[in-house]
Amino acid sequence: MTANPARRSETSRQAILTAAFDLVGEVGYAKLSIEGIAARAGVGKQTIYRWWPSKGAVLFDAFLALMGGGPGDDAALPDTGDLAADLKTVLSATVDELNDPRFDEPMRALNTEIVHDAELAAAYAERLDLPMRELKRKRLRAAKEAGQLAADLDLDLAIDLLWGPLLNRWMQRGGPLTHEYVNALVDTALNGMRQGAPG
Amino acid sequence: MTANPARRSETSRQAILTAAFDLVGEVGYAKLSIEGIAARAGVGKQTIYRWWPSKGAVLFDAFLALMGGGPGDDAALPDTGDLAADLKTVLSATVDELNDPRFDEPMRALNTEIVHDAELAAAYAERLDLPMRELKRKRLRAAKEAGQLAADLDLDLAIDLLWGPLLNRWMQRGGPLTHEYVNALVDTALNGMRQGAPG
Repeated sequence: MTANPARRSETSRQAILTAAFDLVGEVGYAKLSIEGIAARAGVGKQTIYRWWPSKGAVLFDAFLALMGGGPGDDAALPDTGDLAADLKTVLSATVDELNDPRFDEPMRALNTEIVHDAELAAAYAERLDLPMRELKRKRLRAAKEAGQLAADLDLDLAIDLLWGPLLNRWMQRGGPLTHEYVNALVDTALNGMRQGAPG
Repeated sequence: MTANPARRSETSRQAILTAAFDLVGEVGYAKLSIEGIAARAGVGKQTIYRWWPSKGAVLFDAFLALMGGGPGDDAALPDTGDLAADLKTVLSATVDELNDPRFDEPMRALNTEIVHDAELAAAYAERLDLPMRELKRKRLRAAKEAGQLAADLDLDLAIDLLWGPLLNRWMQRGGPLTHEYVNALVDTALNGMRQGAPG
């Protein structure tokens, strides 16, 4: 049996993504280079440039790979019927990731890179941010239909109110990210969004 | 009368700050350089390096200069007694700034640079973020004492809920930044923080 080029190619691809993710955590985004990724992955630079235009693009695919390729068709936020509990579960998991040093630096790098790289920002929006936002919208829409949220609530504003404070606190290092913080955030934000909340 | 070295020095300093601010808006942060700032300001590179360790540090001082040196001793958020109206005034002014192309690029540069530069982050926290946060806390504390906010409300969480969604939407280009958005954000967030809001 001869070597399978498709399989060899996939092995290189995985090695490159793993190398990019590990390296950015070790040296930071500024010092991350295609050369460094190639050396760590044991491939030539040209192999990387054949598939990706920039180190930011490699890093983004490394993220998607880590998340199992981004949200799949059957992906969904938990729905136990208790919106507050479900949101606390989701945001607590996010906080655990943000507090994990293995994730912190690569995620900061990606989040700052998309600010300056329009092409990467478009890929990020299309493949990660918009699908995730649709999952959040879907869970909140179910709560709205169950009468748990005000009928005229703008779902994008609701998403901003639940996720924005957390992500902004993380990016600006504005305070500790704890499960207690998540619980207070979800309770206070939902208070303002309930059917019949004081206007 | 001989030339006044202190005045000449201050003139150079102002020229450098203006050049840094203008240039980052024109070429973006990645292409901003000490050389470029020096050429635009009509000074030598060494003059810049005598006062600042990095282009990020120059840009930060350019911001502070623009804001009149950062929040002064008598700075305060408006207090008409109507918390919602006051917050809408403040956040609408912020939205107008964020929508101004002259401010957008320099502010993005500063906000992403502090993520990667610990020294700049410390200066930013000490000279801008913490004083601003104290002004916000003071305004919210007055509302709490007037019984307009829940007695057990955490003021830092309240600040995150009011400013976090806006700043996160701006950084992630997650949607339009309008006065209507600000009004809905303030109303919904405050709903959840009122005395006697549903728990």
